[in-house]
Amino acid sequence: MSYPTIVMMTDFGADNSGTCAMKGVCDSVCHQLVTTDITHSIEPFNTWQASSQLMYVEPYWPKGTVFVSVVDPTVGTSRKACVAKLKDGKYVVTPDNGTLTHLFYEVGIEEIREIDESINRLKGTEETSIFHGRDLFAYCAARLAAGIIDYQQVGPAYPVSEVVLHDTMYHPTIKDNYAEGRITSAMRHFGNIFTNITVKNFHKAGFKDNDVINVQIICQNKTVFEQKVKYAKSFGYVDIGEPVIFNGSTLVICLALNQDNFAQKYDIYSGEEWRIIFSK
Amino acid sequence: MSYPTIVMMTDFGADNSGTCAMKGVCDSVCHQLVTTDITHSIEPFNTWQASSQLMYVEPYWPKGTVFVSVVDPTVGTSRKACVAKLKDGKYVVTPDNGTLTHLFYEVGIEEIREIDESINRLKGTEETSIFHGRDLFAYCAARLAAGIIDYQQVGPAYPVSEVVLHDTMYHPTIKDNYAEGRITSAMRHFGNIFTNITVKNFHKAGFKDNDVINVQIICQNKTVFEQKVKYAKSFGYVDIGEPVIFNGSTLVICLALNQDNFAQKYDIYSGEEWRIIFSK
Amino acid sequence: MSYPTIVMMTDFGADNSGTCAMKGVCDSVCHQLVTTDITHSIEPFNTWQASSQLMYVEPYWPKGTVFVSVVDPTVGTSRKACVAKLKDGKYVVTPDNGTLTHLFYEVGIEEIREIDESINRLKGTEETSIFHGRDLFAYCAARLAAGIIDYQQVGPAYPVSEVVLHDTMYHPTIKDNYAEGRITSAMRHFGNIFTNITVKNFHKAGFKDNDVINVQIICQNKTVFEQKVKYAKSFGYVDIGEPVIFNGSTLVICLALNQDNFAQKYDIYSGEEWRIIFSK
Repeated sequence: MSYPTIVMMTDFGADNSGTCAMKGVCDSVCHQLVTTDITHSIEPFNTWQASSQLMYVEPYWPKGTVFVSVVDPTVGTSRKACVAKLKDGKYVVTPDNGTLTHLFYEVGIEEIREIDESINRLKGTEETSIFHGRDLFAYCAARLAAGIIDYQQVGPAYPVSEVVLHDTMYHPTIKDNYAEGRITSAMRHFGNIFTNITVKNFHKAGFKDNDVINVQIICQNKTVFEQKVKYAKSFGYVDIGEPVIFNGSTLVICLALNQDNFAQKYDIYSGEEWRIIFSK
Repeated sequence: MSYPTIVMMTDFGADNSGTCAMKGVCDSVCHQLVTTDITHSIEPFNTWQASSQLMYVEPYWPKGTVFVSVVDPTVGTSRKACVAKLKDGKYVVTPDNGTLTHLFYEVGIEEIREIDESINRLKGTEETSIFHGRDLFAYCAARLAAGIIDYQQVGPAYPVSEVVLHDTMYHPTIKDNYAEGRITSAMRHFGNIFTNITVKNFHKAGFKDNDVINVQIICQNKTVFEQKVKYAKSFGYVDIGEPVIFNGSTLVICLALNQDNFAQKYDIYSGEEWRIIFSK
Repeated sequence: MSYPTIVMMTDFGADNSGTCAMKGVCDSVCHQLVTTDITHSIEPFNTWQASSQLMYVEPYWPKGTVFVSVVDPTVGTSRKACVAKLKDGKYVVTPDNGTLTHLFYEVGIEEIREIDESINRLKGTEETSIFHGRDLFAYCAARLAAGIIDYQQVGPAYPVSEVVLHDTMYHPTIKDNYAEGRITSAMRHFGNIFTNITVKNFHKAGFKDNDVINVQIICQNKTVFEQKVKYAKSFGYVDIGEPVIFNGSTLVICLALNQDNFAQKYDIYSGEEWRIIFSK
């Protein structure tokens, strides 16, 4: 028999041994389970970023895959520990704290259940309350992936309408020749800018390949960047050092400099206060 | 047939390709072997940290697991390359240089053997003496995990009493209403402070949940931090920015600031010169 | 049946979730496939470093292994996406942009084929042109590793003589008692200096164990380091803090300081402009 893969994401930091303890728990529950990683460098406590990163990889994994996300600023308090069953037949084990936002809107949640700690918590861990990633989330995910419990045995269902969502960050404004959204990621490594405007919405606003579009980036009512930028297929279609609008690999609209670092050059960050406006 | 997992830790740095060469050696010895990682960001040459990180994950892996630890400041000289068989039936392949301290005291070492290089060294690597992680430790671990050799064939046994230990860092002072130990980790990512005082020892000193306890951190006879701090279940039980004493996930006593960074704020590091005193 | 391992390397950064999407593609193509990593911290766009890191791990993986390298500064333009079949029976899936230099000279390329996008590109990804790592390289590698396509079905073959090579960085000058090459890596973590001079070439020049050799490092006609240095088996054979020449684990000549950081102390970097001369 072949088990679904367990795919882990945390904000523990790339250096942290905690994820290895989580994988050990899975190996102890069922030695045939395979675990792998999304990233463990989610900005500490940033459940919005966790949500967008889950969405970034989820479509590429097969039906049945069990994702475990541990970005959990309020671990040990009353937030719900849950397992969401997505409409495409995959599972997400996570604190219910906004981490499910993108998947809720893009894939859909079929059912959600709160983890019953009396059944699905690793025995012998009652004296510590701060490592639910290992003691609750990984353990429950492993039992589900191994078929030791079925989805109903995770714990009691609650209404999908109660799932915690980051609504303000999620919805862009789309009008004729106008799209206004938020910068959702501006990672330092390559410096590319990701927005919450999908390619579909961008086309709905009327923007087309090879258009030259006015781009304005605003933080706290201050314009940080404003320039006319070409909408092209890839970096290589503009001169080296020049900005370009392109379809990101997750089919959201992105900005980059060809062979240079946009985020660093213009000192751009991400979040609710980082607005971006495309207009003609 | 199903083989035990090989779980690797080094101080090579997260970016280093060396661990991939080690995994390739395992894959070449036996293609069915599964390898995974603890961390490769042990502070270079810090065998104390290696020891504590091994202890952090070891309990969560099943019997038979083969750990490979390569923190090896004196590679190529006369320190022993060994395989320890733990009392719970797991194996650790490592230079014998203090890396086994925690496991020696917490789990117990049943038997220890020096790796016989004439048998358990990768052929064709005689011209280089600096990558025992690949040529000796990974190779020997893979042969053991794959059942090509049994434990006796690792090489000659030597007395467990000769295992190199970091004794001074290990033993705290426990008295009535008083516990004095060392800071064993103060990682920058979350900034939590780990001590060498177990929850069991802390309770033996008479400290109880919700006690407000005087905490003093001393480095080179200078008090770096002194404050009365609550002993609570988790971060969320004190105000944002406030310090809290709590049971760490490895059941040692820890300190943190709720949603802030203790190590950074008070410029705390770890090691033998970092004393911490809890008193009432 | 047992499939070869897929071994991935990119310049996406250790934090990047993109590699997880690539692994998801592999898991979707064939759930039995196993994926692992070399490093994802290749300096952005540095195809020379990609080439040397591939060479660093390739010898330790078994016949049939499928390497996927995505360091692709000109993604989405006309550079060839290819699969090289090496003379030792392993495969490399990569943009043809210099990444194959070391393997070309050290192992040999038996045959090279351009990936036919009409067959070996993930369906539904036509709207984005910037993530060939996921949509083309990982997908094609997974199909090859899973036996869904054989090597001929990758796409049309082209002459091995057309493979893009970094020739100037590759070839050192070897004379009697003289070896002149380039610094190919000077990573900050341990600070060891790697050269493009193999142990074999070094011996051909007449240098022997325990020789004391004049080492000169030159950058842009400025001598950055010049000192007589011992050629020894390992770091431990010189005093702490002292430099040593030794056989690196890939059998190229390296320089280090015993328990100190050579690259940092002398501010050494790598690349074509960093010449190193050994002479007696």
